[in-house]
Amino acid sequence: MRIAELSSRSGTSVASIKYYLREGLLPPGTSTGRNQAAYGEHHLRRLRLIRALIDVGGLSIAAAREVLSAVDTPQLPGHTLLGVAHGALDRPHRRDPSDPAWRAAREEVATLVRERGWHVAEDSSGLDNAADAVAAMRQLGQEDLLEAMPTYADAAERIAEHELDLVIARRDPARMVEGVVAGTILGETLISALRRLAEQAASARRLPTA
Amino acid sequence: MRIAELSSRSGTSVASIKYYLREGLLPPGTSTGRNQAAYGEHHLRRLRLIRALIDVGGLSIAAAREVLSAVDTPQLPGHTLLGVAHGALDRPHRRDPSDPAWRAAREEVATLVRERGWHVAEDSSGLDNAADAVAAMRQLGQEDLLEAMPTYADAAERIAEHELDLVIARRDPARMVEGVVAGTILGETLISALRRLAEQAASARRLPTA
Repeated sequence: MRIAELSSRSGTSVASIKYYLREGLLPPGTSTGRNQAAYGEHHLRRLRLIRALIDVGGLSIAAAREVLSAVDTPQLPGHTLLGVAHGALDRPHRRDPSDPAWRAAREEVATLVRERGWHVAEDSSGLDNAADAVAAMRQLGQEDLLEAMPTYADAAERIAEHELDLVIARRDPARMVEGVVAGTILGETLISALRRLAEQAASARRLPTA
Repeated sequence: MRIAELSSRSGTSVASIKYYLREGLLPPGTSTGRNQAAYGEHHLRRLRLIRALIDVGGLSIAAAREVLSAVDTPQLPGHTLLGVAHGALDRPHRRDPSDPAWRAAREEVATLVRERGWHVAEDSSGLDNAADAVAAMRQLGQEDLLEAMPTYADAAERIAEHELDLVIARRDPARMVEGVVAGTILGETLISALRRLAEQAASARRLPTA
């Protein structure tokens, strides 16, 4: 198909498609003449994935490029790919590791992870991001809110097991790879939205509304 | 204290403090002469909150300004403040509401919310964000991953109830307000990090690693 059809079928402007082509997120089409190229169904599928990662998952162009390049490396083990998808969700953390309060928070998170029997890499950015939040809560005098940590960890555990069940049920490695990426990144948006809805419902019942 | 002391005690550069003053996130100090001002403990506390919202919560300057202005409105009911904190976490969604697939996803989310007895505003952005993720999963052929939705919703419900318990236990309205903001925004960072850690642990056990 021509770029105009790719645009209308994907709901993405021609300008955006050209931008994704330039940025290397979308592979080039087959040249059919001066300034013309033909695109296939795989371009349409890739374009939908790009839009989902950027528009729904909130990824930057650079983060989306990393994820797509991992998806395009079929020999990459599933666990490694998960690490790449997680890297795209990583928040740039700016805490000073020499700050004793931050180090204490990092150790608190590491202890929780150990006690739950979660085996994770010692340099996992999830440990740093969690420590950022714990250190900030303590510094703001909000440490009582950290009593919800076991509830958060239980929820994380149940969610992770169910997600892995679904990905593993697919059996086909290529489909498992897609599932890891979509589940990790779109799942984050979905969980965040459902938490806000549940909070709104609980708050309407229990906090002053007017 | 002078701005230099405020900087060293908060671990924030003088340039950043001046930027927050210009942007209206930090209230001005008391003028003590030409180009000099004195700052108090409340400036230090506010500065820590600003850094937590921006560095740990990932909020933009504009979103942080909205949240801080709500915190500064003491007569604002807790439930309304929660809405402001949620607004700061809202993802800009770009789906076309005239798209039948998106409308079906929105209805699917609304049905889930209704069946769970969650009373939320019909125009809640959480409904739109969740619909974005559901529609994207279906469009990418990942609909089997939506079988995790009940697990996500259970987790959201347990988390919300525990968070509300902790905020309500404070009794003091000013402390409740702080708790809603810190819990909503820092809690999001914490939950996201713990989910990634739990996924890494589950994946290391269950997916090919090398």
